[in-house]
Amino acid sequence: MATVKLLTDEEARQSPEAWEVFEDIRATRKSDFVNNFWRALANDPPQLRRVWGQLKQVMAAEGELPPLVREMIYVAVSTANGCSYCVHSHTAAARAKGMTPGQHAELLAVIGLASQTNALATAMQVPVDAAFLAE
Amino acid sequence: MATVKLLTDEEARQSPEAWEVFEDIRATRKSDFVNNFWRALANDPPQLRRVWGQLKQVMAAEGELPPLVREMIYVAVSTANGCSYCVHSHTAAARAKGMTPGQHAELLAVIGLASQTNALATAMQVPVDAAFLAE
Amino acid sequence: MATVKLLTDEEARQSPEAWEVFEDIRATRKSDFVNNFWRALANDPPQLRRVWGQLKQVMAAEGELPPLVREMIYVAVSTANGCSYCVHSHTAAARAKGMTPGQHAELLAVIGLASQTNALATAMQVPVDAAFLAE
Amino acid sequence: MATVKLLTDEEARQSPEAWEVFEDIRATRKSDFVNNFWRALANDPPQLRRVWGQLKQVMAAEGELPPLVREMIYVAVSTANGCSYCVHSHTAAARAKGMTPGQHAELLAVIGLASQTNALATAMQVPVDAAFLAE
Amino acid sequence: MATVKLLTDEEARQSPEAWEVFEDIRATRKSDFVNNFWRALANDPPQLRRVWGQLKQVMAAEGELPPLVREMIYVAVSTANGCSYCVHSHTAAARAKGMTPGQHAELLAVIGLASQTNALATAMQVPVDAAFLAE
Amino acid sequence: MATVKLLTDEEARQSPEAWEVFEDIRATRKSDFVNNFWRALANDPPQLRRVWGQLKQVMAAEGELPPLVREMIYVAVSTANGCSYCVHSHTAAARAKGMTPGQHAELLAVIGLASQTNALATAMQVPVDAAFLAE
Repeated sequence: MATVKLLTDEEARQSPEAWEVFEDIRATRKSDFVNNFWRALANDPPQLRRVWGQLKQVMAAEGELPPLVREMIYVAVSTANGCSYCVHSHTAAARAKGMTPGQHAELLAVIGLASQTNALATAMQVPVDAAFLAE
Repeated sequence: MATVKLLTDEEARQSPEAWEVFEDIRATRKSDFVNNFWRALANDPPQLRRVWGQLKQVMAAEGELPPLVREMIYVAVSTANGCSYCVHSHTAAARAKGMTPGQHAELLAVIGLASQTNALATAMQVPVDAAFLAE
Repeated sequence: MATVKLLTDEEARQSPEAWEVFEDIRATRKSDFVNNFWRALANDPPQLRRVWGQLKQVMAAEGELPPLVREMIYVAVSTANGCSYCVHSHTAAARAKGMTPGQHAELLAVIGLASQTNALATAMQVPVDAAFLAE
Repeated sequence: MATVKLLTDEEARQSPEAWEVFEDIRATRKSDFVNNFWRALANDPPQLRRVWGQLKQVMAAEGELPPLVREMIYVAVSTANGCSYCVHSHTAAARAKGMTPGQHAELLAVIGLASQTNALATAMQVPVDAAFLAE
Repeated sequence: MATVKLLTDEEARQSPEAWEVFEDIRATRKSDFVNNFWRALANDPPQLRRVWGQLKQVMAAEGELPPLVREMIYVAVSTANGCSYCVHSHTAAARAKGMTPGQHAELLAVIGLASQTNALATAMQVPVDAAFLAE
Repeated sequence: MATVKLLTDEEARQSPEAWEVFEDIRATRKSDFVNNFWRALANDPPQLRRVWGQLKQVMAAEGELPPLVREMIYVAVSTANGCSYCVHSHTAAARAKGMTPGQHAELLAVIGLASQTNALATAMQVPVDAAFLAE
């Protein structure tokens, strides 16, 4: 149960701005499925457009990192931030983009190791080496 | 200033177990530089060996993800966990492994976007779509 | 399912200290409803009294910030801390204090934006400008 | 020391896109000061424009929440996310928008209290009351 | 629903490495119960072995801290990291190791208080006293 | 540099409420040293009293957990919350209460391990075993 209403297509259609984004989500993903995150955001159509616009640009635009790598980074951040919804949705997205079980296992291993050394470095308050600061 | 002593080479050499790890760090990295994180961990030689052993296995072993991708995931996790030391050291490591300014920019963009949608999904308590749960 | 028992009224009444707090919660809120958080805390009556005492003082006492603004700040912190229970209960509390859908949308937008720039500032390890340190 | 270069005006001027944003920052704030966050982001001009665009829209546009309230929410999120740079810069921004010492004290008290009850609710894994889920 | 399959005994037995760990978990704990965390990790047998190996060493080996104290520290970290699974499993483990209701209440009180003062120290950006840095 | 003024004794003495707390801190700790956290909080005397009162009660009152164990739990929470000030001050406090290097090493090992398994459980979204929910 969300803290805002999850808009049905019918409800989203009341706002031309929201509906336009829903149509773009469908066209971009070549799928009729609009997941709950966008249905929740649709309560604030300008925010919906702003966030979707960023997602399209950051995750789908031409670039130097393959889309799958971007998704795996997304999963890593979502895990560290403890966002259950995002871990689920971006793990599914990474799979849809071809993540193999082996790649998933390595992603998990890096996330786990980084979390451990992050905590150790913080607990020991290790000062940054001068070598890392030289730009 | 750390909450533990940063061991000099001379001090680390007092423990054969710690010294062996220092030598392995140097051999593996083909560099004489041992950064502060390991000098701090060296106060507990078994822990030093355990953490270094994992790092070698997770970050350097043959696998499906290129070492650079693993480093970028490490930076992403370290950022979300707010570990200043780790952000510095693993950004430096990613650069040493060939991360271009363009890849760094994309990494930052994904980290920023994920952090935003993580917060929004949490604030709206969006329920996970059934489609993402199908295994 | 909690990691502690959620005390019923009957169980809470066994401890005069816990019961007194339950009665104060009801009197203060002019409602018979005592939510699960307090029923969980009631296992430790002095802690129940301490936390409730703070809440009354911090959230309800006369002050310079309107109670609704305090609730929205509470929602923001709860979101960043990933506390599902608290996001639900304090969003409900904010609504009860008059938060409009428009205010909620703006609250969400600020939370999302701040989370993004927080991550970017951390990932780039931006040094604090001297201008911000001048007291 | 940042993990990216902080661009001087001269360097930012090399990119028309970055320079345009710097000029808009100066015009919007009616001040010549461009703080380090933007100088760091300027290494990726499209990202600079995207983030500044959001900030202008979310923090400065007409709305139902006074700009000062938005700044205080920003400080709250930044604190919970442990972003030192952001706590400094947005506390300064809140002061510039008129935050009184009394309002600051209340903001701090709510942040502290919420952090405590967030942790307690999580540690006790309190289930959300049905009453909070009724939409 | 997990993002990976939870392996049944039959499935785990396909990998000699995974099965050996399952048998060691059962022997070490003198119980037939293998909880979901290990069934999830079993998809990556070397990672399963690595994590279980650490857990055995860190939580069960002879040492200066009683096993119960280690479990309570585990609960504290899991709470601050917002890991619902871990709060449940390690609270159960602490109970199995003899944690009394009174000790649990004190653990919760320290977690709550620390979370509050952590947030306050961060919000006020209190500089570390020289006295704490003298090693 | 803090976001609030660190009050000198002379400044704190202006508020009888703040001064009384400073005197109690000194009497309780049998030391003239008042660390920066309290000097920062002193800008809001009622908040200073509220937080100090809790600290005295939670950390120093008779109870089932030895004061040293409480301090180590405090360090664990402060680490997971990324509070540099608190990691320093409570590690110092734990040392003052007798924490040995061996105990510190074990504390660090548990913090590191828990952080790793927390991240793994979150990344895999492991469902809580029924066995842990039976109360």
